Amino acid sequence: MENNRYDQGVKKLAEIDGTAGENVIASLQNVAPDLGKYIIEFAFGDIYCRCGLNLQEREMVTITSLLTAGGCEPQLEVHINGALNVGISPKKVVETFLQCIPYTGFPKVLNAITVAKKVFADREIILK
Amino acid sequence: MENNRYDQGVKKLAEIDGTAGENVIASLQNVAPDLGKYIIEFAFGDIYCRCGLNLQEREMVTITSLLTAGGCEPQLEVHINGALNVGISPKKVVETFLQCIPYTGFPKVLNAITVAKKVFADREIILK
Amino acid sequence: MENNRYDQGVKKLAEIDGTAGENVIASLQNVAPDLGKYIIEFAFGDIYCRCGLNLQEREMVTITSLLTAGGCEPQLEVHINGALNVGISPKKVVETFLQCIPYTGFPKVLNAITVAKKVFADREIILK
Amino acid sequence: MENNRYDQGVKKLAEIDGTAGENVIASLQNVAPDLGKYIIEFAFGDIYCRCGLNLQEREMVTITSLLTAGGCEPQLEVHINGALNVGISPKKVVETFLQCIPYTGFPKVLNAITVAKKVFADREIILK
Amino acid sequence: MENNRYDQGVKKLAEIDGTAGENVIASLQNVAPDLGKYIIEFAFGDIYCRCGLNLQEREMVTITSLLTAGGCEPQLEVHINGALNVGISPKKVVETFLQCIPYTGFPKVLNAITVAKKVFADREIILK
Amino acid sequence: MENNRYDQGVKKLAEIDGTAGENVIASLQNVAPDLGKYIIEFAFGDIYCRCGLNLQEREMVTITSLLTAGGCEPQLEVHINGALNVGISPKKVVETFLQCIPYTGFPKVLNAITVAKKVFADREIILK
Repeated sequence: MENNRYDQGVKKLAEIDGTAGENVIASLQNVAPDLGKYIIEFAFGDIYCRCGLNLQEREMVTITSLLTAGGCEPQLEVHINGALNVGISPKKVVETFLQCIPYTGFPKVLNAITVAKKVFADREIILK
Repeated sequence: MENNRYDQGVKKLAEIDGTAGENVIASLQNVAPDLGKYIIEFAFGDIYCRCGLNLQEREMVTITSLLTAGGCEPQLEVHINGALNVGISPKKVVETFLQCIPYTGFPKVLNAITVAKKVFADREIILK
Repeated sequence: MENNRYDQGVKKLAEIDGTAGENVIASLQNVAPDLGKYIIEFAFGDIYCRCGLNLQEREMVTITSLLTAGGCEPQLEVHINGALNVGISPKKVVETFLQCIPYTGFPKVLNAITVAKKVFADREIILK
Repeated sequence: MENNRYDQGVKKLAEIDGTAGENVIASLQNVAPDLGKYIIEFAFGDIYCRCGLNLQEREMVTITSLLTAGGCEPQLEVHINGALNVGISPKKVVETFLQCIPYTGFPKVLNAITVAKKVFADREIILK
Repeated sequence: MENNRYDQGVKKLAEIDGTAGENVIASLQNVAPDLGKYIIEFAFGDIYCRCGLNLQEREMVTITSLLTAGGCEPQLEVHINGALNVGISPKKVVETFLQCIPYTGFPKVLNAITVAKKVFADREIILK
Repeated sequence: MENNRYDQGVKKLAEIDGTAGENVIASLQNVAPDLGKYIIEFAFGDIYCRCGLNLQEREMVTITSLLTAGGCEPQLEVHINGALNVGISPKKVVETFLQCIPYTGFPKVLNAITVAKKVFADREIILK
């Protein structure tokens, strides 16, 4: 059953973050492999595999939380990609960030938009 | 047009937060009435009236941001009520908070659940 | 010279925070007396005694920092009193908090205004 | 094996937090039972059961992190008790908090000391 | 009247942040133009145009809030420039940051001073 | 006696942070020399010279606090080096960070591990 958590987590991580997620896990291999294991088992195997919210809703919650926390630009980059991967439109990513202005102020939203801009450019997305 | 922002904001605030929202604005009357004005005009008149996300999505973003910021229990109480008012189920409120665990850790989620518990009790909601 | 820091700090603390400051120090006596000593010596003896900003400017910086940090309501209460004690008007305290909205969002400003409201009531201040 | 995680977590939680930990889990039963399950399985079953740090070191890290995060007073109360339960002396709890001053500033340390004071009083601990 | 807010905001932004402010707005044009609009209308048109604090006081509050929030280095760079543009001396910028030490601890002050150092170098300011 | 604080602080700083600490102080010389003085006198002369925790425990508290605060990567780099300098093993540094997961969530731990990875590489440390 434990195995299930890991295997399900790997599948879920691939579904959401694609190779970016794998790269994060791989980058931990020589310094803190168990951190990668917990991200897979707990974050993706336990939490992302739950019912009650679909993957688009989960990614909307995730990028909101990362924007609000601040200082999580590398994770925000992975999960803006994740949000797009599960079908959230680029416009909706931006709209999610704008909804945060009254609760976080402008600077954190500006920082998140800067990351979104980079992700959109990498994916050759042009907003109209 | 300025008037529009205020009037639209008042309507949106009533739609989402009901009397709890009005109480927040009223409580500011003698000390910082302009703060109430900005909440109505900017947060509710400008931001909540935008297209691109529906009200349920906006409240999901809001309660996620408030949970992650921490120390916003009074606002979280207003917006858990707001989330329920716009049709998010109590179970989905809880699920939104659980999705935050990997990104905020347990203490902030525990604090948010404590507020949710109070709101659910006030509204005589029993989760099954 | 060390003595100077402590003595100067005690004087400065009394000048700014009056008995509220003394109460904080006294409340630490049985559990962490050195914390009180460092607050007096370092915060008030070293920092508040510096040139380059006057006491009104220092208190404006302090209440801004406490509002932005969040979760510092007890210290905010002491320093809103401090701000008033050194001659900042109640209106200017409120204005300082409103200036933070674009940088912190509404919830932290609402929390600070709630504390200000209590302080103003305690001092029987009525804003017009 | 999954069972192992839960059972080990329950044992570890009891060892550290005693009935206070059980109370937190019980209080979640009607609103978010899975949150309690994850705290037991992941926080206590996975993380606290690891090698590499002893329980005193783990609790020292925990109370430092909770102090620094801010707004986690309920969890800080549980884990100051936890720190004392695993054999950290009351003086060492206070010393841990004082070590944070240069990194967090005074207000968060004052808030943590206020919680420690309450815990020490509850346990009839008198510091000399 | 709505127009007034935008036009006044543009003027105020130019007065405070000069071309750096315009660059921020321009950089948002292709990804989130409404974010730029809100910064101009709300932050600069509504808040910065208020009475009750002069521009030097507003910038002092702003750089204090940005230092305390942390992770806002790009905004801090814009507003340290803004502070200098409205007549705050470089020494007073540094003094404002030092006043934060007791409330935020050293690391955030060090990060802010690092940004100030860069701004002073860009403007060929030498502190004596 | 004041002199004592400075001299003791310089010694303690050298003992913990070696040349990296000196570099931080030196980098402040032209912009905010008093900030360097306070770090030496207060952080290292007063706090780090206290009894009640040994240097390994103090550095464990420090890196935990810096991880939890977020946005303090430069200081974390100095103090991961400091932790290693006073005899904490690289594995124990990593273990300290893993203990934070339940309290801070994964992103802050990932950011701290990224810094640790750089420090370990700089020191040619290979974890087994």
